[in-house]
Amino acid sequence: MPHSTAVELTHRVNAGLASAESAVRHYVEAIEARDGALRAFAAFDRDEALESARAIDRLRPKGPLAGLPVAVKDIIDTAQYETCYGSSIYRGHRPALDAACVALLRSCGAVVLGKTVTAEFATFAPGPTRNPHAPGHTPGGSSSGSAVAVAAGLAPVALGTQTAGSVIRPASFCGVVGYKPSVRRVPRAGVKLISDTLDEVGLFATSVDDIALLVSVVAQQPAWAMRPAQGRAGPAPTLGWTLTSRGDEAEPAMRQAVERAAQRAYDAGARADAVDWPSSFDPLFDAQRTVQLAETARALGPEYAYRRSQLSAQLVEAIREAQEFPAQRYAEALQAGRRCAAEIESLFGGSDVIIAPSAVGEAPATLASTGDPLFNRPWQLLGCPVIGLPFGLGKQGLPIGVSVIARPGRDAQLMAAAAWLEQCWQRPAD
Amino acid sequence: MPHSTAVELTHRVNAGLASAESAVRHYVEAIEARDGALRAFAAFDRDEALESARAIDRLRPKGPLAGLPVAVKDIIDTAQYETCYGSSIYRGHRPALDAACVALLRSCGAVVLGKTVTAEFATFAPGPTRNPHAPGHTPGGSSSGSAVAVAAGLAPVALGTQTAGSVIRPASFCGVVGYKPSVRRVPRAGVKLISDTLDEVGLFATSVDDIALLVSVVAQQPAWAMRPAQGRAGPAPTLGWTLTSRGDEAEPAMRQAVERAAQRAYDAGARADAVDWPSSFDPLFDAQRTVQLAETARALGPEYAYRRSQLSAQLVEAIREAQEFPAQRYAEALQAGRRCAAEIESLFGGSDVIIAPSAVGEAPATLASTGDPLFNRPWQLLGCPVIGLPFGLGKQGLPIGVSVIARPGRDAQLMAAAAWLEQCWQRPAD
Repeated sequence: MPHSTAVELTHRVNAGLASAESAVRHYVEAIEARDGALRAFAAFDRDEALESARAIDRLRPKGPLAGLPVAVKDIIDTAQYETCYGSSIYRGHRPALDAACVALLRSCGAVVLGKTVTAEFATFAPGPTRNPHAPGHTPGGSSSGSAVAVAAGLAPVALGTQTAGSVIRPASFCGVVGYKPSVRRVPRAGVKLISDTLDEVGLFATSVDDIALLVSVVAQQPAWAMRPAQGRAGPAPTLGWTLTSRGDEAEPAMRQAVERAAQRAYDAGARADAVDWPSSFDPLFDAQRTVQLAETARALGPEYAYRRSQLSAQLVEAIREAQEFPAQRYAEALQAGRRCAAEIESLFGGSDVIIAPSAVGEAPATLASTGDPLFNRPWQLLGCPVIGLPFGLGKQGLPIGVSVIARPGRDAQLMAAAAWLEQCWQRPAD
Repeated sequence: MPHSTAVELTHRVNAGLASAESAVRHYVEAIEARDGALRAFAAFDRDEALESARAIDRLRPKGPLAGLPVAVKDIIDTAQYETCYGSSIYRGHRPALDAACVALLRSCGAVVLGKTVTAEFATFAPGPTRNPHAPGHTPGGSSSGSAVAVAAGLAPVALGTQTAGSVIRPASFCGVVGYKPSVRRVPRAGVKLISDTLDEVGLFATSVDDIALLVSVVAQQPAWAMRPAQGRAGPAPTLGWTLTSRGDEAEPAMRQAVERAAQRAYDAGARADAVDWPSSFDPLFDAQRTVQLAETARALGPEYAYRRSQLSAQLVEAIREAQEFPAQRYAEALQAGRRCAAEIESLFGGSDVIIAPSAVGEAPATLASTGDPLFNRPWQLLGCPVIGLPFGLGKQGLPIGVSVIARPGRDAQLMAAAAWLEQCWQRPAD
């Protein structure tokens, strides 16, 4: 079975045209061939994956995700595979049960292919994963392995998590589609808690339609609610575009990508106006960082108290910084987020969705950092759903992604607009 | 060392008047004498507790909670003790590290005395714990063991959790002080997630001052911010009181308790007016239940999928009910909560705090149910901090509690008002 979309693959397995085992075997062989160099997987067991696939092949009916191999970020509990959260502290840790999102996927016929490398506790210190487009460049993080697995054809879809830009940034650096849902749209039970306000489970795939198929399962939405287009282009969305107030910190190629993406949509019949970034939204960048660090210091308090020597210098430094925050800083940062969320119309106005940078630019030429989530921060604190779509290449020939963003709770509208934009942007430019 | 408050006990240990070991030994002996009948503890290890105490005795300085024995609800991870979440599914489960709240307590010198019985996954099916005031009556739940441990003098303070009324109701039934903080005031990392929107870590003690001492540690607040009174009565608060729109479902003794509590405060110099319950807040009762059940069904999805035969019939029924909810019901329930929270002033008006029933009435004469959280539901969905204070006895001679409630985020103001009311209500009536 060649590399195919999740929609095609599950169709073929459900129609009896292919077995779950052959679908899984295809990806198992890809992992065995390429993961030695890419290091996307933290835990992988060929026999376990194939046995799970054969169990699906014995089932009638198999479910909407029949035979779909899924790579799971190692910040998410799995009973089948060791779950280490990217830290030596949890070496050998074997959860009693899967996380809720994994159980949902498996109950619909999906097969967990293995665990993918996460930055340490989904925070800062990178794992060994390499960018498939340029091995000396970061794949982004913290969902590094999940982005690479999908980008390199080692898995058709993958689960990640995002607290700042941990799905959208690696999707941009690796040239795949990423999705960060609205607040609490996907259950978090069994996901290691890092920032209680900001953590969300996200997805990687090679198309919006594959994302929609998966999210209908993990968010327990009717398939029609999440897949309004189902491969057909719906009506043109009304777009706004912005570089935010920090656009001068983006690389020229990223700025051009956002502008060209808007122009292409306009040329194809969408309204696509530049939107004014309200100056009252400027505090969101710092406020998101404050909330994230303050909550990470709290959530990882036990690791810091009992196992500090096993934490990276970066994480210890971040926790120390948060412990020195002035008393009111955290409360004020949360308050800034709530205030802007209440004023969301001053940003969206007449737009269905907004497009904006997914990252500062191309993947930096380093494996010591996963890059800067600057442009992801405001949307995360606002609670907006975001889909990151690939949009061409930068100066170094590496992928560039643009973010499509909807109002909090409008995930179905986002899905429809992103499906339209994906078709628009994939057509050859005139 | 006789039964003493946490404030006294930690003072004595820090002043060198008593050892942590002797403090802990006092409670260890109480557990050994009485817990065979009460069944408050799910896991208890005399040697482990005494060894932890001796470790504190070797430390200089010892910390603000030096030698304080704390009982911990078994829905909260502890590395020292098996953590079973009230379910046979997790028999033998030993977390790698303590929950964040437990690590905070221990880092300040507290000693974990053992794990207390929780209803199954902090939901409905009771454990074996008995009410110390009447062994055939429920102690309330789901934090049954923690409430009983404090009420029976087996621990000076205890940790619980609350999703509907799991701290405030057992505090009322057992005659102790309970505290449910504002949303996310106490870190939830390492607490089994049941309802992502509603779950909070709470506290049990025998006085507001003890609650304030503990919360300054677990919420990482400066002690002065949480203990404005420090045993001295501050200015009289401005009170409102209400039976909500469901007052006719409360027992007469509970209705009278709330009215008398308000009258006593008025007689002592507080403003204490009846407040009108806005009819726009009526949907909160059902909405809280909807959010709780829908999220519990999601969070316990893995247990339901893989280990259904080990779940109680009650829990299976509740999950099935939630799975049948119409598509929009959950979203509308969340929306109702947000709408009322935005209109909170229409309820509080000029009041610093509101007093209201903590439960329907006295502890019911059954061990098959933990009682009805009806009167706790609206405050939980609103995100209000609540302190439950004992206020006399009901018709059967069992404790009755009233809730003191502040606006979301106003935990320090709540603490000050509750300290004043506690002194007022403990004085003999004229």
